[in-house]
Amino acid sequence: MTITNTETAATPVSKVPRLPEELVNSTAFLLKRLGFVSKDRSISAYDAMGLHPYHHAVLAVLEAGPPETQASIADTLGYDRGQLVGLLDELEEKGLLERRRDPDDRRRHIVSLTPAGKKTLAKLRATADRLEEELLAPLTSAERAELHGLLRKLAEQHLPQCSTLPRP
Amino acid sequence: MTITNTETAATPVSKVPRLPEELVNSTAFLLKRLGFVSKDRSISAYDAMGLHPYHHAVLAVLEAGPPETQASIADTLGYDRGQLVGLLDELEEKGLLERRRDPDDRRRHIVSLTPAGKKTLAKLRATADRLEEELLAPLTSAERAELHGLLRKLAEQHLPQCSTLPRP
Repeated sequence: MTITNTETAATPVSKVPRLPEELVNSTAFLLKRLGFVSKDRSISAYDAMGLHPYHHAVLAVLEAGPPETQASIADTLGYDRGQLVGLLDELEEKGLLERRRDPDDRRRHIVSLTPAGKKTLAKLRATADRLEEELLAPLTSAERAELHGLLRKLAEQHLPQCSTLPRP
Repeated sequence: MTITNTETAATPVSKVPRLPEELVNSTAFLLKRLGFVSKDRSISAYDAMGLHPYHHAVLAVLEAGPPETQASIADTLGYDRGQLVGLLDELEEKGLLERRRDPDDRRRHIVSLTPAGKKTLAKLRATADRLEEELLAPLTSAERAELHGLLRKLAEQHLPQCSTLPRP
């Protein structure tokens, strides 16, 4: 089932049929719908650069830490390992990362960012910042901070990978 | 690309690799991830009843208004019209709604809820309420109201179908 986001802010609100209150009153429903909108917009914006938001996430993981194995990147992002290999192939073809055999364990690949990868990551960040700004435009800075804090609280419980609790 | 939500609150946080700060600091990223989690959980919960969250949305639209045409249901929910027909077929097979030709326009179908459909909708609402409670468990009631209000503000801009602005 595809949700078609044909309605945009440019469509006069008076012409758009209204959803039942029961759905709009659900925070989970709003989260899902706003998540879809956000996802669709980032896919379109990244697509214009021949990339996908998942590529950004992979490059960000590579920059954040020491050279990573394929398995650890997949685990960090919660991606399927088989499909991560496809993303890495695409990034390698574009010269944005390199893979080499781990000298300590020849069955493993160590993945690291190239200089071109760092440059692309900077461009992707600028795009992400612009999308974030568009998404949050209706909120004041105090409200943005409030929203982020509340989502972090939910993430602490539901997205352990986003947790900021101290780790050993 | 599938995002595997293998990590749950039961996994010790210390064992879960941490996402790069740049992603966690993005409100759009948290919205997308929390939206995915919420979607996955509701799909699982509804699946146990042989239904999908989209079925709930369709039944809710039918209960909220006068008998609807297929096109108006699709437009209200932002669903693809072709795929909506599939959802309506499934609900009709289960005896939860009925379709009849519009006497004023024989090419159109008017769709309405059956008594069994109303009963099922009540069950789906109870499930949605439970999922909402689980999702928002980390927040106080004041925080829940705050979060809902902020998401409504975003929806006012980005999801015209959720708008509460007065309409003609």
